[in-house]
Amino acid sequence: MVGGHRCDEAIAGTARRVGALLAKAGATVVCGGLGGAMEAVCAGAKEAGGLTVGILPGEDKRAANPYVDIPLASGLGYTRNTLVVGCADIVIALPGEYGTLSEIAFALNGKKPVIGLGSWNIEGMRQVDTPEEAILLVKKLVRKNKTDR
Amino acid sequence: MVGGHRCDEAIAGTARRVGALLAKAGATVVCGGLGGAMEAVCAGAKEAGGLTVGILPGEDKRAANPYVDIPLASGLGYTRNTLVVGCADIVIALPGEYGTLSEIAFALNGKKPVIGLGSWNIEGMRQVDTPEEAILLVKKLVRKNKTDR
Amino acid sequence: MVGGHRCDEAIAGTARRVGALLAKAGATVVCGGLGGAMEAVCAGAKEAGGLTVGILPGEDKRAANPYVDIPLASGLGYTRNTLVVGCADIVIALPGEYGTLSEIAFALNGKKPVIGLGSWNIEGMRQVDTPEEAILLVKKLVRKNKTDR
Amino acid sequence: MVGGHRCDEAIAGTARRVGALLAKAGATVVCGGLGGAMEAVCAGAKEAGGLTVGILPGEDKRAANPYVDIPLASGLGYTRNTLVVGCADIVIALPGEYGTLSEIAFALNGKKPVIGLGSWNIEGMRQVDTPEEAILLVKKLVRKNKTDR
Repeated sequence: MVGGHRCDEAIAGTARRVGALLAKAGATVVCGGLGGAMEAVCAGAKEAGGLTVGILPGEDKRAANPYVDIPLASGLGYTRNTLVVGCADIVIALPGEYGTLSEIAFALNGKKPVIGLGSWNIEGMRQVDTPEEAILLVKKLVRKNKTDR
Repeated sequence: MVGGHRCDEAIAGTARRVGALLAKAGATVVCGGLGGAMEAVCAGAKEAGGLTVGILPGEDKRAANPYVDIPLASGLGYTRNTLVVGCADIVIALPGEYGTLSEIAFALNGKKPVIGLGSWNIEGMRQVDTPEEAILLVKKLVRKNKTDR
Repeated sequence: MVGGHRCDEAIAGTARRVGALLAKAGATVVCGGLGGAMEAVCAGAKEAGGLTVGILPGEDKRAANPYVDIPLASGLGYTRNTLVVGCADIVIALPGEYGTLSEIAFALNGKKPVIGLGSWNIEGMRQVDTPEEAILLVKKLVRKNKTDR
Repeated sequence: MVGGHRCDEAIAGTARRVGALLAKAGATVVCGGLGGAMEAVCAGAKEAGGLTVGILPGEDKRAANPYVDIPLASGLGYTRNTLVVGCADIVIALPGEYGTLSEIAFALNGKKPVIGLGSWNIEGMRQVDTPEEAILLVKKLVRKNKTDR
């Protein structure tokens, strides 16, 4: 999941719902580990019994939000954005700023599916309107991926 | 300079002109060090007596195009895109694909000016139509930067 | 855990025992995710019901050994060594070559405890002779760390 | 050149001499760009008319010492150590702490020659006693490298 470190309540609600649905589907949630949309998606995943990984920009793992199970203190600054995406099979993009855009670009560059949910609108992304649609698309992509191999 | 590793003759001509104008203005050209627009901008800079740095994705510096003076073999893969931008004061974006978009996003995230010349159109970029306009804008931004301090 | 990607049966046995003891102590095992000592430590941790993270050099997570729960495909090449260490609270060093030495150096540079078990002998490391001694020392260091805060 | 960010006058004198000899031999000096031995080697290289590259840990290139011609602000923290080495053909190691050791390890791991001059003593390094001996060895290695291809 990629998205901003600042978010309003509506976005937080969406992120939390995305996290819960991902966890129920058995997915591990990987994100940047900080606050805002990242915290909300982790909180949702934990409520639904999921596992969360946070790839932090700094060297101190205590910067992770309280819903991160596995905090990875990269010390790479914003360059860690490439790792968040590198670790994902599918990227769900929530609203965010240029950091989020860089993650979308890296994912598309690596030919990974990017599902937009109120985020940037870049050619090659798949746009959906609700967390439920996002998860349906994730499941479809996972099935397709398995069949392709 | 950021731009694609594949480019047609028109883009190569533009890139070469950008390189030459940057070199004449006394700027060091930093790019990804490979072919396409990267090679053309380096070729232009060398013709005009400039200095060129290529930050390569792989571990072998022999992958650099022949116009790179200082090849830095990062071994970081596409993550090196953040370094190309991190080393620049001002980013000129030529046509390119998602790799170029990631560099634009990283530059805007770091609050660096990004001048678009037939590249992506992202909010916050400054779009120009010719290499000459790009260099005029570079010079203006450099002056402004000096006055601001 | 840091250690070589090639190892003989004796080292594999030691690594497996270290993994099992760490898992029983409730620790998450983070390693480079490939074969050799890395695979053995993950296998041991999984047998004891633990959780394993593998930070891989390449972009394809299928390179992870079969006992890695969370494969992180960094795409950073050997530079990922700094991440393996950056994610750990305490580093246990098993026999390995220069890659292992770089991880020991990074850990000591970051003032993290490094426990040597038949590995390099660098000033500042704490040397032990058996997996059991290593885990006793880990537990002691964790307690000390908690008291210090 | 790798070496500590703190150094006494004797080490600074050695580093300055190494820088001057490298510049006279036509080599570009790549280092970590900060103070101490890094600053001294750059100062020596500049006095002899050479070119210097500093790969900085932070995002602000103004942290470079005044003798760095091309400051690269990596933003990667200590992980930038792998880049300093990755960009070199031959590594000269001056006295330094664990950061220097990590660079020696990375260089040996990448099968690059590492010449020690009062630095760590790791198997596989080539130890010399004076800057002059170091440069003689550099020249010999460069010739050998050319013949090998």
